[in-house]
Amino acid sequence: MEPLVNGRKNGSKEEEEEEERGKSRQPRVGERRTDAPVSVSKFPRRDPNSPNVMSALGKTNALSRSLARSYATLHNTPSSSKSPTAIVMLNMGGPSTVPETHDFLKNLFMDSDLIPLPFQSIIAPFIARRRTPQIEQQYTAIGGGSPILRYTEYQGTHMAALLDELHPETAPHKSYVAFRYAKPLTDEAARQMKADGVKRAVAFTQYPQYSCSTTGSSLNELYRQGRSGAVGEGIEWSVIDRWGTHPGFVEAVSQNIEAALQKFPESTRSETVLLFSAHSLPMSVVNRGDPYVLEVSSTVNAVMNRLKNSNPFRLVWQSQVGPSAWMGPQTSDAIKGLARLGKKQLVLVPIAFTSDHIETLYELDLEYVKEAKELGIDVHRAESLNESPVFIRALADITANHLREYSAGKIGPTSVQMGLRCPGCTNAVCAQQKSWFARGGR
Amino acid sequence: MEPLVNGRKNGSKEEEEEEERGKSRQPRVGERRTDAPVSVSKFPRRDPNSPNVMSALGKTNALSRSLARSYATLHNTPSSSKSPTAIVMLNMGGPSTVPETHDFLKNLFMDSDLIPLPFQSIIAPFIARRRTPQIEQQYTAIGGGSPILRYTEYQGTHMAALLDELHPETAPHKSYVAFRYAKPLTDEAARQMKADGVKRAVAFTQYPQYSCSTTGSSLNELYRQGRSGAVGEGIEWSVIDRWGTHPGFVEAVSQNIEAALQKFPESTRSETVLLFSAHSLPMSVVNRGDPYVLEVSSTVNAVMNRLKNSNPFRLVWQSQVGPSAWMGPQTSDAIKGLARLGKKQLVLVPIAFTSDHIETLYELDLEYVKEAKELGIDVHRAESLNESPVFIRALADITANHLREYSAGKIGPTSVQMGLRCPGCTNAVCAQQKSWFARGGR
Repeated sequence: MEPLVNGRKNGSKEEEEEEERGKSRQPRVGERRTDAPVSVSKFPRRDPNSPNVMSALGKTNALSRSLARSYATLHNTPSSSKSPTAIVMLNMGGPSTVPETHDFLKNLFMDSDLIPLPFQSIIAPFIARRRTPQIEQQYTAIGGGSPILRYTEYQGTHMAALLDELHPETAPHKSYVAFRYAKPLTDEAARQMKADGVKRAVAFTQYPQYSCSTTGSSLNELYRQGRSGAVGEGIEWSVIDRWGTHPGFVEAVSQNIEAALQKFPESTRSETVLLFSAHSLPMSVVNRGDPYVLEVSSTVNAVMNRLKNSNPFRLVWQSQVGPSAWMGPQTSDAIKGLARLGKKQLVLVPIAFTSDHIETLYELDLEYVKEAKELGIDVHRAESLNESPVFIRALADITANHLREYSAGKIGPTSVQMGLRCPGCTNAVCAQQKSWFARGGR
Repeated sequence: MEPLVNGRKNGSKEEEEEEERGKSRQPRVGERRTDAPVSVSKFPRRDPNSPNVMSALGKTNALSRSLARSYATLHNTPSSSKSPTAIVMLNMGGPSTVPETHDFLKNLFMDSDLIPLPFQSIIAPFIARRRTPQIEQQYTAIGGGSPILRYTEYQGTHMAALLDELHPETAPHKSYVAFRYAKPLTDEAARQMKADGVKRAVAFTQYPQYSCSTTGSSLNELYRQGRSGAVGEGIEWSVIDRWGTHPGFVEAVSQNIEAALQKFPESTRSETVLLFSAHSLPMSVVNRGDPYVLEVSSTVNAVMNRLKNSNPFRLVWQSQVGPSAWMGPQTSDAIKGLARLGKKQLVLVPIAFTSDHIETLYELDLEYVKEAKELGIDVHRAESLNESPVFIRALADITANHLREYSAGKIGPTSVQMGLRCPGCTNAVCAQQKSWFARGGR
């Protein structure tokens, strides 16, 4: 466990130094952007072409609006006088500027939940230094940094505004970004929450499908911060730990696929292959019992149901590194294979991340799209969810339902599934973290 | 392709010899058993505890009954004068008696779609001979043979009777069993169909989730028989190639899980871990792009939705053989891991086969259940679907919907997804087979 502790200390130190170097490069975490006025009416209500999904959403919406109306008469406290209900947006993050690349990589290689290394505190900085130039070049190629913070803040603030209307009992809601490897790191979110006097907090993973390497690692870090008192005392925690088949999420992905399909001639559109691409996992993690492969598969199945199985598809896996075995087929191999089989039209669909980041903007757009075109395939990438109003509405629905069911005692602080460690798990922090969150962070 | 041809010839020859040795050990394929009268009213209509799934089934049922009534007045031709609509039940099969074990194993190791071996026609018989004593012992331990033929015939005849009522336009329906490795082999089904003068046939895989190693291999063999004229001339073929998330199938599995959960004390029932166990696949097949892992995952997700995520669960993989890498975690390792984590209650759920066979009756019941008990776990296995009326109703619904939509021109002879070969596929028979079925077997 030593590397984990080191990882955290390192992260904190660097991030404090960074705060002194230049505070205002990004808007403060969790603050509403004054240039982005939010109103529930901005978000679409219903798509008559997708009655199943949207009628489900419509029902939730009707219920919420009805609740909103009745509660409006009960709660007259001005929301500004109450401490906010914190919605903590967990994600891996990415360097917002190229010079932040090294710190991002160091934090990443220091995370033994993600990449367990022998002598991690010595080897991780070495690997990070060695890989920095190449990754800096990739961030330069996509415009000088990762847009993941910008999108996460946009999604968070708009979601929080919707939540105030959908679930006024817990208003005001405020989103906090807690990245695992880039600023704002978890301890920065913690300080902000403490300053705001937060008493009720929801850890909301922004990875739709659960993996111990992603959501698990973020929850472990949040647990360390929470237990240490960095977030404040006596906070009531609950966790939204997976939502890969939520109908609103599925709808948002499906709409982006449909938009990409529109770019092909109608006469051959149905022959287009949909290639869903998710970040791969080492087979050592899969074989430990990590639920990620099942959950990504379930998302793809739900999207294909929503699309009425209009096109043939495969789920493939990207971004593997190193010599060990990873889950496959690899995205790149699949593209070569489809070309060999004579396929001429392809839509690449990022399915396990919700915003653009280096894996979509560099790996998919600059590497695989180029490769496919060189092989004679006409290829389009389905857009990431980014500022999709359907997606932001889904985030708000997921959170409103969670808050409502939690208040009503219908669900506990974590899901039933989150309580079960992987059969092959030997990480003691996972056990402590799951117990701590299952007790509501006490 | 040579070994494939050899495999078929071998299978045919042995199976002819076997016919001469002892004809009446099993009822004739496709014949209705006189001891099993079938009536639609035997099958349950609606479970008030599961409104979503069963209301969907209920609607189909109401529609079908209404159709049945209206068509009854239109079609007065006695069904016996029409050639039957053939429903060909594809499965791997198993030796009905211990002495059939060797032939079963030889057919299995000869199948290069399942296990590609160098010099297959020489090596396969050698491996089969060497493994026969151990596998014979396993079949002896489960009662002297595999019950898969008995259950497949039961399911097929009861399904056909339901179909006559659900979709009278294509009545009479007759089920034919076509096993890949045991009697009745595909060529026996073909001969029977030819004798019956079949003109319309549905290849209905009894593997709910598609793999090239299972359904793919069976369809390749059926294509060889069909193309050769062994089934007859001018037959119109269509294919039901996957149905792993059909609500009736999901309901049947869920009911068996609920029955197993009832065996635990109510006070601790919700702590019971559900361990879904599917036959594993070599990673070489997964990495080629085989859709099986995604489809099994989707089944598990659908079942857990139906169970309202009442229990924690994992999907694990059984029956791997040999030194190469297979999809994991392995069922046996997962049981050991759960014991180490202090889990005390377990339900084992077979999720990729629909009848009992050696992998449930020997591997799950005699090996893993014993292992779990020795590790201090109270374990029950969810029953296989076997004679489940909900499952047989689902088979009939799947087929009736297929026939209805095919007749209405809403679907083609195969699914959209079946048309796409795996990105890494190099098996020319797969390409020919898919084209042949896509043209309705012409």
